[in-house]
Amino acid sequence: MKLLQDRIRRDGVIKSGNVLKVDSFLNHQMDIELLNEVGKEFKRIFEGYPINKILTIEASGIGIACITAQYFKVPVVFAKKAQSINIDGAVYSAKIESFTHKKTYDVIVSKKFISPEDRILIIDDFLANGCALAGLIDIVRSAGAAVEGIGIVIEKGFQSGGELIRNMGVRLESLAIVESMNAENGTIEFRE
Amino acid sequence: MKLLQDRIRRDGVIKSGNVLKVDSFLNHQMDIELLNEVGKEFKRIFEGYPINKILTIEASGIGIACITAQYFKVPVVFAKKAQSINIDGAVYSAKIESFTHKKTYDVIVSKKFISPEDRILIIDDFLANGCALAGLIDIVRSAGAAVEGIGIVIEKGFQSGGELIRNMGVRLESLAIVESMNAENGTIEFRE
Repeated sequence: MKLLQDRIRRDGVIKSGNVLKVDSFLNHQMDIELLNEVGKEFKRIFEGYPINKILTIEASGIGIACITAQYFKVPVVFAKKAQSINIDGAVYSAKIESFTHKKTYDVIVSKKFISPEDRILIIDDFLANGCALAGLIDIVRSAGAAVEGIGIVIEKGFQSGGELIRNMGVRLESLAIVESMNAENGTIEFRE
Repeated sequence: MKLLQDRIRRDGVIKSGNVLKVDSFLNHQMDIELLNEVGKEFKRIFEGYPINKILTIEASGIGIACITAQYFKVPVVFAKKAQSINIDGAVYSAKIESFTHKKTYDVIVSKKFISPEDRILIIDDFLANGCALAGLIDIVRSAGAAVEGIGIVIEKGFQSGGELIRNMGVRLESLAIVESMNAENGTIEFRE
């Protein structure tokens, strides 16, 4: 998606340790016009798929998922990162190791909101090591529901997550795949 | 907002300890059509205000803020609940005591994303004791920016937050104000 690549080149900041900061338009401040283009592109890619629900994970996936859901006319469910007194009853859970935060945490989804008849599109902002996605796929499959596809805004193509998830037999589409980036001179290359 | 009150009566679940669960349509599973009506209503209420940015707090405020932002044609910034390696540089911060989670945490916003010229609409899903809102107001004012208004989906009118925030001289509008609720018989009364 050229619009997105151009925006990453213009406003993304490459930091040492393979960190790509896109917090000025994607995951701290959010450019809603850009998210609308992202949502339309996911709809174009997954047109005709019998998707009836979008699943994402807090926090930065939520905005993208909600804007995208308008084009699919389906509800959004977001996985929560910690047990809350407001989630009672049975939950599906998965353990996730965060690349960003260097720690492991549990994510949960109430069993009320994923059923065997659900056909789910998973949406997230970043794909790096794939742990978050693998956890979400595990939750969907635990519920007996189907993962129709996965839509990612930015994939770090030089990390192992993309291969891990594609090897699970799921259609994974990333709108921008970073092939390499260089914190010293600020250059970034995308996979075509 | 009658549509919202009707939905709370139909799908909300009242639990002991003054907990109102609306996780089937607002803050775990999200009904995007309803959120669009919420966004339109906030636009109607704050029509003519010179709002150039929406501020919310992760996680459940984000979806509402993003959908609402489409009607204002402005970006969204969400306050984050913990220090991340992806937020560096200077941040505005505030301490918040969560009614839901019974704990205190820091919320932060990068100084890059609030400037003195910003005129901000704060959006959140719930108002109970007002701590989260007071923290967000504090962050906006620390930046020298202006709070043009606050839009809340559900206010617990029997808790002190509404009075606390209105006494700060900010225009606060809640789309549904719960006057009282009864966990034993499941009844709920709204302020008219």
